[in-house]
Amino acid sequence: MPDRLLPHLTRASAPLTREVPVVNEHGDASTLSIPAERALTVYVDKRELVTLMTLGAQPELLVLGYLRNQRLVRSVEEVESITVDWDVGAAAVKTREGIANVEERTAKRVVTTGCGQGSVFGDLMDEVDQIALPPDARLTQAQLYGIVNAIRLQESTYKSAGSVHGCALFRGEEMLIFVEDVGRHNAIDTIAGWMWMQDPSAMGAADKVFYTTGRLTSEMVIKSAQMGVPIVVSRSGITQMGHAVAERVGLCAIGRATGRHFYCYSASQRLVLQPELAGPKLRAAA
Amino acid sequence: MPDRLLPHLTRASAPLTREVPVVNEHGDASTLSIPAERALTVYVDKRELVTLMTLGAQPELLVLGYLRNQRLVRSVEEVESITVDWDVGAAAVKTREGIANVEERTAKRVVTTGCGQGSVFGDLMDEVDQIALPPDARLTQAQLYGIVNAIRLQESTYKSAGSVHGCALFRGEEMLIFVEDVGRHNAIDTIAGWMWMQDPSAMGAADKVFYTTGRLTSEMVIKSAQMGVPIVVSRSGITQMGHAVAERVGLCAIGRATGRHFYCYSASQRLVLQPELAGPKLRAAA
Repeated sequence: MPDRLLPHLTRASAPLTREVPVVNEHGDASTLSIPAERALTVYVDKRELVTLMTLGAQPELLVLGYLRNQRLVRSVEEVESITVDWDVGAAAVKTREGIANVEERTAKRVVTTGCGQGSVFGDLMDEVDQIALPPDARLTQAQLYGIVNAIRLQESTYKSAGSVHGCALFRGEEMLIFVEDVGRHNAIDTIAGWMWMQDPSAMGAADKVFYTTGRLTSEMVIKSAQMGVPIVVSRSGITQMGHAVAERVGLCAIGRATGRHFYCYSASQRLVLQPELAGPKLRAAA
Repeated sequence: MPDRLLPHLTRASAPLTREVPVVNEHGDASTLSIPAERALTVYVDKRELVTLMTLGAQPELLVLGYLRNQRLVRSVEEVESITVDWDVGAAAVKTREGIANVEERTAKRVVTTGCGQGSVFGDLMDEVDQIALPPDARLTQAQLYGIVNAIRLQESTYKSAGSVHGCALFRGEEMLIFVEDVGRHNAIDTIAGWMWMQDPSAMGAADKVFYTTGRLTSEMVIKSAQMGVPIVVSRSGITQMGHAVAERVGLCAIGRATGRHFYCYSASQRLVLQPELAGPKLRAAA
């Protein structure tokens, strides 16, 4: 799409882990890797917007996806550049024409579950009913197992240091991007930023599957639906609001996905069952 | 303390789990318990402040602790009553004399890690350096094992439905309160509210230990320190900012605490090691 004006992004990098001294139960002193976590203050056209706490792997995409998922920017083309400087912990966003009514649009807070009190500007739920997910999107049980296996094999900060959440975007069982962050909302926002850079028209989400290590809370389901991704997979479970939103928009939510086990909570017509792949029934059918 | 004016709290209750239909890997349909999650909009003196997404077990204490941890209320006596009505999803807070400058004090957002982008009004880090934790607070390894065991035995929504975080407050190995919520910041806020009701002067935190199933992020460590609790224990790990804050305030952070294993990340002088209780070294000393 040569006529699309994509934003210019820096590629700021910083170490993702650090070593700290620890003492264990035997009284042995050693060192352990823990994930980095740094403050990134976002300025939009020189106006301070928010401070995000992040692992810092892909800060530019995080900021872009944050602006997208908070509905502060409606098109990737509105953003001219995002410049991250870790020396000062700042992300400078330059827009082409400014953001209208930014004061007003960031005034209303809905503090959502996440694992904490995630802030979402504006009333996301108001937008839920406007979402139309592609009715024909399907995932086979074999592809689901492929996704779970790809995550299992993925090298990660989690494996070396723990304490981060992972998210990934798949096409069928093909992993397109894998993102980790100390906050799982940051991870999904980073994927939202990546999707915008790859597909500015945001038309290409219909055949995608979103994976998260975290729980399927309302905010996670809403963000996936807003991105147009009709299927989400988690190794964790689902909360009531996540379930309610998934049912409402017809999003297929699959949880407890480890090994060959899973539960499909909603829109199960999107999951093409292949029970012959599940192996013997070792547990009671419940 | 008969001369203390404690707020009047309702005792609103609502179901903590609900059953939803699921399909598993064998194609078997059944039902599964998932945790409830409901929106609670907080009004302070009839002014809308925030909407919290919560499991809803102890909403009045959650709101009280939220106001405390957000530094919107400096003393429990400032609050006259908290009235929760689940029919309309509202918590009405009545203060005795109003909250000064509430507009201004809720204007600055620091979006913290949590597992999401937790909102904290004001600049918590500015307050960290003013915190003086009791220098003599100690926990023995035997007490730590008692805490881990008490959590293991606790009946919980997590055991029946998963997808919630648990927090608890201990004195030594005695569990004083156990709270679960879909958001772990909600769980710690609820404990903060409970502590204020029990101990309005907030002088009694020195011999307490805070337990969380969630990670020790900066926000969790800061909240514990603000509550005056000098020792935190988690079954999960710690992030870099959590570690940095714990070191700065001399808070003893213990993570990966399961069975007899743990790591002490900071202020290890507060942990009285008893390696003879740890059992044989089955793993490499690392």
